[in-house]
Amino acid sequence: MRRVRLPPTLRWRGDARSGHLELLDQTLLPGRIRVIRIRTVDALVDAIRRLAIRGAPALGVAGAYGVVLAVRESGDARSSSRFLERMAVGAGEVALARPTAVNLRDGTLGAYRAAFLAYGRGARTPAIAAAALREAKRLHAEDAGFCRAMGRHGARLVRSGGTYVTHCNTGALATAGIGTAFAVFVTAKKAGKRFLVLADETRPLLQGARLTALELAANGIPGRLLPDGAAGGLLARGLVDGAFVGADRIAANGDFANKVGTYPLAVLCRENGVPFYCVAPTTTVDPGTRDGAAIPIEQRDPDEVRAFGGRAVAPRGFPVENPAFDVTPARLVTALITERGVLRAPDRRKIARLLPSR
Amino acid sequence: MRRVRLPPTLRWRGDARSGHLELLDQTLLPGRIRVIRIRTVDALVDAIRRLAIRGAPALGVAGAYGVVLAVRESGDARSSSRFLERMAVGAGEVALARPTAVNLRDGTLGAYRAAFLAYGRGARTPAIAAAALREAKRLHAEDAGFCRAMGRHGARLVRSGGTYVTHCNTGALATAGIGTAFAVFVTAKKAGKRFLVLADETRPLLQGARLTALELAANGIPGRLLPDGAAGGLLARGLVDGAFVGADRIAANGDFANKVGTYPLAVLCRENGVPFYCVAPTTTVDPGTRDGAAIPIEQRDPDEVRAFGGRAVAPRGFPVENPAFDVTPARLVTALITERGVLRAPDRRKIARLLPSR
Repeated sequence: MRRVRLPPTLRWRGDARSGHLELLDQTLLPGRIRVIRIRTVDALVDAIRRLAIRGAPALGVAGAYGVVLAVRESGDARSSSRFLERMAVGAGEVALARPTAVNLRDGTLGAYRAAFLAYGRGARTPAIAAAALREAKRLHAEDAGFCRAMGRHGARLVRSGGTYVTHCNTGALATAGIGTAFAVFVTAKKAGKRFLVLADETRPLLQGARLTALELAANGIPGRLLPDGAAGGLLARGLVDGAFVGADRIAANGDFANKVGTYPLAVLCRENGVPFYCVAPTTTVDPGTRDGAAIPIEQRDPDEVRAFGGRAVAPRGFPVENPAFDVTPARLVTALITERGVLRAPDRRKIARLLPSR
Repeated sequence: MRRVRLPPTLRWRGDARSGHLELLDQTLLPGRIRVIRIRTVDALVDAIRRLAIRGAPALGVAGAYGVVLAVRESGDARSSSRFLERMAVGAGEVALARPTAVNLRDGTLGAYRAAFLAYGRGARTPAIAAAALREAKRLHAEDAGFCRAMGRHGARLVRSGGTYVTHCNTGALATAGIGTAFAVFVTAKKAGKRFLVLADETRPLLQGARLTALELAANGIPGRLLPDGAAGGLLARGLVDGAFVGADRIAANGDFANKVGTYPLAVLCRENGVPFYCVAPTTTVDPGTRDGAAIPIEQRDPDEVRAFGGRAVAPRGFPVENPAFDVTPARLVTALITERGVLRAPDRRKIARLLPSR
């Protein structure tokens, strides 16, 4: 495989007053590398909805940068309540652009809080935008550090000669750093371990085929792409040593939502006595979500399933079920790997202790 | 949904001497309805390999018709051993065009046996071809009858108001009749039951999206199409009442091979306490295959996974695992439904009793 170099997943260019957000448009990968400039809340919401940017941690950081745009679009802070109303609506649109990943909500609200505090101190619009930008950049750097820490903790669970399966994309393209589950592979590889990664293609939007395969190639990690339905047979034949997946939201009891197809993989790992690891920063834990049943699951456009690249693959208008996520119960999780370490058999009590500062 | 009418999946036109096999080219569905004429062994082998015709029972009948073509291409029966050699090689190529479905092998060998017996009686080429055609037509009619019987037995397990999941395509397009698992839906619908069918899209070749959705529409059965990874989440939420799938080969102990993704579905049904039914004629049972581990699994072209409709969806040359089938152990099968009835908890002893005449 040819090594490829990708531009950053997201990056803020310039200052708060006139700068913009750059996003690598992930809908065009692997065929085309195109960086898009985001200067408005509407453009950001559109980019998030069509998955130009995706992955829970990356969405959290993008949402925070979105508040800078919302502040700029809110007019003059001196005209008070109108300003606040606009800023709140703009930030709210970003925070709710997709419902499942808690990071998008929390990243956006974190930057909104910083902006609001500046507003409350009587700051003018440019200073409010600067406060939001500082918080976004702090979150950006924090996520990058979390990624490195998750990689370090998880890499201890990878053994040379092993074969590991992953689902969807959890690498640099899904975060502001080296990834969540994928960080484990990157770090294990850097530590000199040799292993094989099986990448579920991840229908319907093929993030495994389009993005994870690309990141495996970019990092020189040996990989195989496979249809989502094929992992089970390989597990049954004893060819897989573990599974590492990310998360979009972890409930207070350890149940978690992740890309549709994750729950089947967890059940198949359990059935075959293979460890199943969830890798996510503590920012993906939502203590306000009691359990998996309380996580809202996004339903997406039927045409993601009925058509491909503009070509119909099913009868026109045939009804579709297209949930973007499913919920894996905590009891199927061998360990939750966060920036704080490896939490075996996660449950409500252990997860509560993981979040002392909040 | 608009009701559609499809031409027969396969049909012999004319006599043994100058007739030909007509196949509905399933690779073009649902977009285009095109019937292809098969006049040579090579053309049939190509049609089988590229899945213009597929489905274990349909392959069995197509293979039998193929022997008529093999006989015709073998020259003059009076030049004895050269004739036999050619006929055997032609029939052998058809029988082994794909390795997993036992029906292809057995259907072809059945017609070969009829041809061989005629040859042994000193018949001339036209009479040998006619003997093969008679056996092929007998098998064709037999399979149609088996489909009706499977539908009758299985329909008793469908309840009005229920929701049932299926994988790949098992309808008229996969058989010489109304289907295997799909026959259950057709028969239950005719009996006035109202129910919903969830059709796994079935990557990589999307037989669920392209063929099963089409057959659901053609039969006026309410359906939903879903990515293969989505059935698990629906099962976990208690929204599914049972699964009906077909089989490509059933081993003597009840383990069976079917389209990749079947085993995960069986595990997910067991995990969620939902019955899982395998529906296949006894011609799909291979008493010579001891258990699932002995079933050869076809590995198919990586580009089925790496590209879609000619468009690359993964980095060029990225390695792929593309097994066409997986093996479901008998212990996960609630019942095996054949033309002879419903066999609960199939095992070696019960299956042996199912095949008294062989």
